[in-house]
Amino acid sequence: MRVIVHGVGAIGGVVAAALALSGQEVLGIARDPMLQAITAGGLTLDSARGRERARFACVAHPREITFRPDDVVLLCVKTQHTEAALADLRAAGMTDQPLFCLQNGVANEDMALRYFPNVHAVTVMMPAGYATPGEVTIGCEPRFGIFEMGRYPFGRDEADEALSEALNAANIACFVRDDAMAPKWGKLILNLGNITGALLPAGADCAPFDGPLREEGKAVLEAAGIDWADLGTDPRREVLMRTRDSGEGRVGNSTTQSLARGTGSVETDWLNGEIVRLARLHGVDAPLNARAQALSLRLMSEGGEAGSLSDKELETALFG
Amino acid sequence: MRVIVHGVGAIGGVVAAALALSGQEVLGIARDPMLQAITAGGLTLDSARGRERARFACVAHPREITFRPDDVVLLCVKTQHTEAALADLRAAGMTDQPLFCLQNGVANEDMALRYFPNVHAVTVMMPAGYATPGEVTIGCEPRFGIFEMGRYPFGRDEADEALSEALNAANIACFVRDDAMAPKWGKLILNLGNITGALLPAGADCAPFDGPLREEGKAVLEAAGIDWADLGTDPRREVLMRTRDSGEGRVGNSTTQSLARGTGSVETDWLNGEIVRLARLHGVDAPLNARAQALSLRLMSEGGEAGSLSDKELETALFG
Repeated sequence: MRVIVHGVGAIGGVVAAALALSGQEVLGIARDPMLQAITAGGLTLDSARGRERARFACVAHPREITFRPDDVVLLCVKTQHTEAALADLRAAGMTDQPLFCLQNGVANEDMALRYFPNVHAVTVMMPAGYATPGEVTIGCEPRFGIFEMGRYPFGRDEADEALSEALNAANIACFVRDDAMAPKWGKLILNLGNITGALLPAGADCAPFDGPLREEGKAVLEAAGIDWADLGTDPRREVLMRTRDSGEGRVGNSTTQSLARGTGSVETDWLNGEIVRLARLHGVDAPLNARAQALSLRLMSEGGEAGSLSDKELETALFG
Repeated sequence: MRVIVHGVGAIGGVVAAALALSGQEVLGIARDPMLQAITAGGLTLDSARGRERARFACVAHPREITFRPDDVVLLCVKTQHTEAALADLRAAGMTDQPLFCLQNGVANEDMALRYFPNVHAVTVMMPAGYATPGEVTIGCEPRFGIFEMGRYPFGRDEADEALSEALNAANIACFVRDDAMAPKWGKLILNLGNITGALLPAGADCAPFDGPLREEGKAVLEAAGIDWADLGTDPRREVLMRTRDSGEGRVGNSTTQSLARGTGSVETDWLNGEIVRLARLHGVDAPLNARAQALSLRLMSEGGEAGSLSDKELETALFG
């Protein structure tokens, strides 16, 4: 098995580095400046184990890859880049190799099914950070995170078992399940707070905003008849993912990191926007998540920075 | 009401020209060389009425538009361009103006619902052709076509009534219905033959290929529990859309026209690919449509031309 990691950012970076350090064959697909850094000096993984340098091959584009029957592909790009990534993978010669979606949101698996027959959903619980090219950090111990995975839309197969085994050997706790989308919906509920974490200054109390956004989200899932697994109460997290005292501040959630790196696009349309879409589809309202989605758009169009809103301003924007 | 036509190609071109000729205010969004031709000399509509020159404003990008509350937007781009079009429209200031999807396939409405609250589905039966910049042709008479429309996912509102009235006045027969997606699924079944029409030489007998592709598609819709309206048997077509003897060959279906113009992308992933996706989602097989999708990819990646396959070659590729 060769593991191709498409999108070596925070999550993709920790996964690629952890797998490579465990002896697994890894091939990364990364953009500059990450690509340049990895090519020059490998990828440093900063964890409770210390600073370890992982070496693995890395390319800029799928067209540089000669696909093999024993490849598995981990999709780690943000949802706004998924369609292009899928089209590139197919044009490069990928056919029926297993594709695992490690992304936030619930739209990627369905996009992938149009192009590839063997699609898998992976729920990623992993406080990974990518602030400096060539270096990723992991904010928990003893394990680097907890993954739940299975076939999309449901079921499990030997590809789940094989990848799960490799990830467990790389210090990422993996669980295979038949209803792999249920925890992805649960993760979506948690991610509804990403935008407030990105808008407010680091260390601000997000709970007064995240609570209502998530309650509204849960009501929409209820109206849509969607089964979801509550990740907020997962007891395994306390045992396997204790917060690590790294001596540095957390780099923030994935939306915050995108803003901080000035990548020009955030994933809010696929998080709060998913609740908004679902509400419209089922004839219910989701005004808070709609305002959160609009706030994200405003922030991007004005070239705003992470943490640029006071809690008073956010309160007015969200609750009127 | 101002009608913004996003994508002045074959369908968008006939609709924009017909509306403008009827006295309706129209604003087009077009790419070069169509944009240049329209700006220089208007858009010529070749129909059973003769050759008429329509004049309307046209821009290259939504950002050049100051949106008004009385705007309605007709999305006429191919599905592979929908996400970008939606993001551009929103960034340009569009909010709750009605958006009508006049496109083939069934994926556009759902994409739009993530960005806009008032989404409408339009099934377009219109043998429109666009081979020369600044000119579109319509291959039927006495009406330019038949549209069915309503709100997505269901229902109808005053925006349907207003647009329907304007289109009827522009010689396009319009019908508003509560279940507007049913005929769009029916249109999808017909469009499963687009790829064979594009692969075979003009005038070839496509029926031996289209029949099995469509039967397989119907079986998948049945397995997925999707209600659809059969357009192949619509008696209104014989009365309202008689084939016009234009003295020129038909320019072919939308996939053929894309290939002939060398646009570098075809819509097969959203036609045959939709059946493939749905089959995978519901655990049934769609081998013929999967092969049709693969054939389209091969044609594009090899820079193939419309009509470059013999029926013997297609038979082998499709049925083995």
